[in-house]
Amino acid sequence: MSNDLLKNIQIPADLRKLTSEELPQLAQELREFIIDVVATKEGHLGASLGVVELTIALHYLFDTPNDLLVWDVGHQAYGHKILTGRKDVFHTNRQFDGISGFPKRSESEYDTFGVGHSSTAISAALGMAIASKLQGVKKHHIAVIGDASIASGMAFEALNHAGDTNANLLVILNDNAIGIDPSVGALKDYLTKIKAPRLEIEQHNIFEALNFDYSGPIDGHNFEELLRELDRLKKIQGPKFLHVITTKGKGLRQAEQDQVKYHAPGKFDKISGDVLPKEASKYTKYQDVFGKTIVELAQQNEKIVGITPAMLTGSSLKFMLEAFPDRTFDVGIAEQHAVTLAAGMATQGLIPFCNIYSTFLQRAFDQVIHDVALQKLPVIFCLDRAGLVGEDGATHHGVFDLAYLNCIPNLIVFAPCNEIELRNIMFTAQQGLEHPIAIRYPRGKGKLEQWNLPFEKIEIGKGACLKEGNQIAVLSIGTIADNVSEALNLFKNKEVVAHYDLRFVKPLDEQLLESVFEKFDTIITIEDGTIKGGFGSTVLEYASEVNYQGKIKLLGVPDEFIHHGTIQQLQEICGIDVNSIKKTIQDLL
Amino acid sequence: MSNDLLKNIQIPADLRKLTSEELPQLAQELREFIIDVVATKEGHLGASLGVVELTIALHYLFDTPNDLLVWDVGHQAYGHKILTGRKDVFHTNRQFDGISGFPKRSESEYDTFGVGHSSTAISAALGMAIASKLQGVKKHHIAVIGDASIASGMAFEALNHAGDTNANLLVILNDNAIGIDPSVGALKDYLTKIKAPRLEIEQHNIFEALNFDYSGPIDGHNFEELLRELDRLKKIQGPKFLHVITTKGKGLRQAEQDQVKYHAPGKFDKISGDVLPKEASKYTKYQDVFGKTIVELAQQNEKIVGITPAMLTGSSLKFMLEAFPDRTFDVGIAEQHAVTLAAGMATQGLIPFCNIYSTFLQRAFDQVIHDVALQKLPVIFCLDRAGLVGEDGATHHGVFDLAYLNCIPNLIVFAPCNEIELRNIMFTAQQGLEHPIAIRYPRGKGKLEQWNLPFEKIEIGKGACLKEGNQIAVLSIGTIADNVSEALNLFKNKEVVAHYDLRFVKPLDEQLLESVFEKFDTIITIEDGTIKGGFGSTVLEYASEVNYQGKIKLLGVPDEFIHHGTIQQLQEICGIDVNSIKKTIQDLL
Repeated sequence: MSNDLLKNIQIPADLRKLTSEELPQLAQELREFIIDVVATKEGHLGASLGVVELTIALHYLFDTPNDLLVWDVGHQAYGHKILTGRKDVFHTNRQFDGISGFPKRSESEYDTFGVGHSSTAISAALGMAIASKLQGVKKHHIAVIGDASIASGMAFEALNHAGDTNANLLVILNDNAIGIDPSVGALKDYLTKIKAPRLEIEQHNIFEALNFDYSGPIDGHNFEELLRELDRLKKIQGPKFLHVITTKGKGLRQAEQDQVKYHAPGKFDKISGDVLPKEASKYTKYQDVFGKTIVELAQQNEKIVGITPAMLTGSSLKFMLEAFPDRTFDVGIAEQHAVTLAAGMATQGLIPFCNIYSTFLQRAFDQVIHDVALQKLPVIFCLDRAGLVGEDGATHHGVFDLAYLNCIPNLIVFAPCNEIELRNIMFTAQQGLEHPIAIRYPRGKGKLEQWNLPFEKIEIGKGACLKEGNQIAVLSIGTIADNVSEALNLFKNKEVVAHYDLRFVKPLDEQLLESVFEKFDTIITIEDGTIKGGFGSTVLEYASEVNYQGKIKLLGVPDEFIHHGTIQQLQEICGIDVNSIKKTIQDLL
Repeated sequence: MSNDLLKNIQIPADLRKLTSEELPQLAQELREFIIDVVATKEGHLGASLGVVELTIALHYLFDTPNDLLVWDVGHQAYGHKILTGRKDVFHTNRQFDGISGFPKRSESEYDTFGVGHSSTAISAALGMAIASKLQGVKKHHIAVIGDASIASGMAFEALNHAGDTNANLLVILNDNAIGIDPSVGALKDYLTKIKAPRLEIEQHNIFEALNFDYSGPIDGHNFEELLRELDRLKKIQGPKFLHVITTKGKGLRQAEQDQVKYHAPGKFDKISGDVLPKEASKYTKYQDVFGKTIVELAQQNEKIVGITPAMLTGSSLKFMLEAFPDRTFDVGIAEQHAVTLAAGMATQGLIPFCNIYSTFLQRAFDQVIHDVALQKLPVIFCLDRAGLVGEDGATHHGVFDLAYLNCIPNLIVFAPCNEIELRNIMFTAQQGLEHPIAIRYPRGKGKLEQWNLPFEKIEIGKGACLKEGNQIAVLSIGTIADNVSEALNLFKNKEVVAHYDLRFVKPLDEQLLESVFEKFDTIITIEDGTIKGGFGSTVLEYASEVNYQGKIKLLGVPDEFIHHGTIQQLQEICGIDVNSIKKTIQDLL
C-alpha cells in the first residue's frame, strides 16, 4: 500500500494536522514502514508493532517535545523514532554511525531520556515532573512501561515514591503479557486477573493502593478508546496510571503467534512474514554451549539449579527449563533478587548457576558483594554477552565486569578463551568449589567445530601458554585471544611474540606472571573490557608488587562509552581488532 | 529486677522448656539485658527493643536452627543473638574480635544469612525454601522484615517471585512505621490505612494480590496473639504473610518517644534512659559540613535539590529538609530510584545533590553508569561514610567506591582531604559542571576548627603538593592524608618525603604526576579503599602509559573483607595507620 499520510509527516506537529479518523490508516502505514525496514535491516520488531496506535495517540494528543515522553527499555520506540524526525534515517538503525536502536538524548529532543536497561522510565519521568513543578512549568510527563519491566524492583520504588507526591505524572502500562520471554511472577497473574472483566475483583487495586488514579484496562489498538482516555487523563492532577492492553507483534501474523521469536527476528520476508534462514554455520553460539552444558551437568548433579532474570531464550537456559522445569527459575527482570535467591539456595547446599548478562549484573553489584562474596557462598555466575556486544550499543556492552568484579574479595573471575573452556569451567565450578565464581563469555558464535568433548577439570588460578616467543609477551583474557592468535599469524617471524592466556583475572596466575616477567622486557595485555581497573590493571598491580621493571602496554576498551556498530567496527575503535593488535606489536618490536 | 529466666537460657531449646505464661517475664528480662549492655557498650537499640516478644515467640514456636530464620538488616537481632548462644559475649558486640552487630553466618548456626544492607531477607529465605522443597526437606523458612525495608525494590522482586511459587515461606512484616528515619512512600500510607480497623478497606490487599496468605495486623507485643497466629501459620502451605505492629524502642520511654535518636543512641543512662552527653569537641562531623553547606548553597542557587534514600538524619540532609522542605526528597530505601530520579531532574536543569552512603551506592551502580554517566547528566553524588566505617563492619565499609566508580567514563571522582575541600567542591559542582561528579568523604569528625570559610572554586582535575621532599613521594587521596601528615611529622629529617594530595581520582592530574615521576624514583600511593582497581591502580595505569621506570608501592585496603572494630584498629590491619605508613616509608628509604 502507499504511504500517503506517513510521507507527509516529519515530526509530530505534522501528525497533529490529521483528523482522528485518519489515524488508523496512519497506523497501518507506520506498521508497514517498520516491517519494511526491519525485514532487511534487522532489529527489535514485535514491541514496536504492538505500540503503533499508542505511539501515534501520544504524539497526537500531547505536545511533544515540550511534553516529556519516556519510553522504558526502548525496544518499542521505532514508531516514535519514525514520527519524530528520523523516518529518512531509520534504515541506518543500529548501524555504525546510524541511529541508535534505543531512544538517546543526543539523537533527538524527542528522546527525553536514554534507555536500554529496563524499569528506569518512571523514576526519570517523575524526576522531570518534580522539576517542572519546582520551576513552575506546566507540561505533561509520561512514562510508557511494559508489564515485564514494571515488575522490576526499581519500577516499584518509583511508583512508591510517585504515589506520595502530587507530581503531574502519567504512567502507561503497556501490558502485552510478555517481555522477551513471557512475563512471570505474581504481579503478572494479578494483571491477568484485573484484565478479566467478568471476575469480581476488588475496586481498589495495587496501583490505586499506591495512590495512583488508575484507569483501564483499555484496548491499545483502538484509537477511540486511547484518545478518549488520554484526553481525560490530561486534565487530571497528580499521579495517574493507565493500563493499556496490546498485542506484541500486532499486524504481522507470525509475529503475533511466535512473540518470542519475533522479538528481534533477524531478517524476514516482509510479505510472508517468514524468518529467513540464517546462514548455515559449523559453529555454535556460546549461549548454546552454556545451555547444553548445564543440562548435561544437571543430569549428573542433582544439586544444580539454573536461575535467569528474564533471559530464558537469550541465555539458552531454556534448554534446562525443558529438561528440568523444577530446577530452572526465571525470576523476571529482577537481577537483585536473582543473585540473593541464589545465595539463599547455596546456603542449603544447592549449586546455583545464575546466568545474567554482564551489563545487567551491574544491577546486582551490591548483592554479589554483600550476599554472595562476603559469605563466600559458592554461587556460579555465568555472565553472558560480556565484552562488546555490537549493535545494541553503549547501554548493553559488557565491558565493565572485569573492573567491578576484580575489586570483590573471595570471588573467582574466569574468562574462557573458547567453547571447551566454558564447558570445562562449568564442570569444574559445580564440583564443590568453595568460592563464588564469575564466568564471562561473549555473545555469539565460537570458532570450534568440535567443542562437545569429555569434561576436564580446570585448575583454579592457572593460566596457559598458547604460543612461545622470545621478544614480546602478549597476555590475553577470554575470547579476545582469537584476535591475538590471528594477529600473530600475520607475522613472518613466528619466534618473536609469545602469547599467554591468563584465563583467571582472579586469582591471577602469579607463577606464570613471574616467569613472563623474568623472560620479557615488553608485555602487552589485552582484554575486551575497560582498561581502567580491568585485567591489564591487575597485571600492573602485581608487577608493582614484585617490582617488575619492564614495559607493560595495556590494550582494551578506553575510558569512554562505546556506541553501536558491528563488533569488528567497535574493536577497531578500541584498537583490539586483529590489525590494531598487529600494529601495536610491530611498534613495540 | 533479677533475670531468673534468662539466666537459664543459652539456646532456644532452653527457651522452649518455659510455659507460655512465663514468656512475658522473659521478655522483660531480655529487654533489660539489652538495655543494660547497650547503655554502656553502644549499638542499635530501638529496633531490638521493638521485637523482643516477636523474637521470643519465633524461637519458642519454631525449631531453630533447623527451621531457618532470616532477619532483614539485622539492627533488630540483638535479642536473637542473646537467645542463641551469645548472651555471655554480647558485651563484645561491635568490638574488634567481638561479635558482629549484625547476624553473620560464620558466628552462629542460628544466623542463617548475613545481613547489614536492607531488603535481602525475603530473597534469601525464598532461596532456602525452594532448596528445602527440591531436597525433600520439611522445615520452615521465615523472613522478618521492617516496613521501611519492604518498600525497597529488591523486596518487591522477592515478593513477586515468592507469590508465584508454593514455597513454604513466611514473611513477617515488622511494621513500626520507621526505619532509621520515619518511613515514607505510598506503601507506608497504605500500611497505615490497613492498620485502621474502622476504615472500610478492601478485603484483598497488596500482599494478597501477590498471592500471599495475608493475616494481621496483630499486636507484636502481645504473646497470646503472636503465638496463636504463628502456630496457625505453621500449618499453612505456600507463601504466607504476617503483619505485626510493633513499637520501636518498646519498653524504654525515651526510646519510644524519640525513635530517631534512640535508633543507635550511643551511651545512655540505663535507669533514666537519658542519652549521656557526648564528649565536647571543637570539631564538626563531615555529615554536618555537608548538611550545612548544602543549605548555604541552596539559599543562593534555587536549582539545587537534595535527595536521600532514607538517610535524612545520618547524612544530615535533614538540615536541608528543615530549610527547604519542597526541594528535599527522602525517597525511602530506594537507591536505584534515587539515582535515576536525580538523572531525570538533571535533564530539566535542576542540580541534584544525591547523598548516598558509599556502601549503599553499590545498590545503584547500574543507574550511575546507564542513567547518569552515559548521558553525562551533571548529578552531584555525595558519598557519605566512604572508607572504613569502623564498628558497623564488613557490610558497611565504603571501600569499593574508588574501584567501581573509576571505570565509569564521563564521571569525575573527588575525595576532599578536609572539611574546607568538601565545602569548596560542593560549591564548585553546582556552578554548571558539565559532568556528573562523585564526592566521597568519611564518617565522623574532621580536624579543623575553622572550616566555614568563604567558598573557593576548585579546579577540576588539579591535585596539590602538601609538602615538598626529595627522596620519596607519597600520593594520597582523601582524608587519609591526615595519617600521612602525622606519619611525616614523626621523621626527624623533614626533607626526604614529599606529600601530594591528588584530590581527583578521575580525571587524574597528569601534569602533577609527570612532575612527580620526573623527580622521584620511589612513590607510595595510599587510599582508604581497595587496592584492587583503586587510586593506586589508576596511578599505575598512567605510569605504564608514560613508561615510568621507578618503583610504586600501593597502600590501601587489601583484597579481603575487613570486619568490625575501631577505625584505628582496622587501619592497622590494612597498614594505613600512622605507624604503618611511617614504617613503609622507612623501609623504602
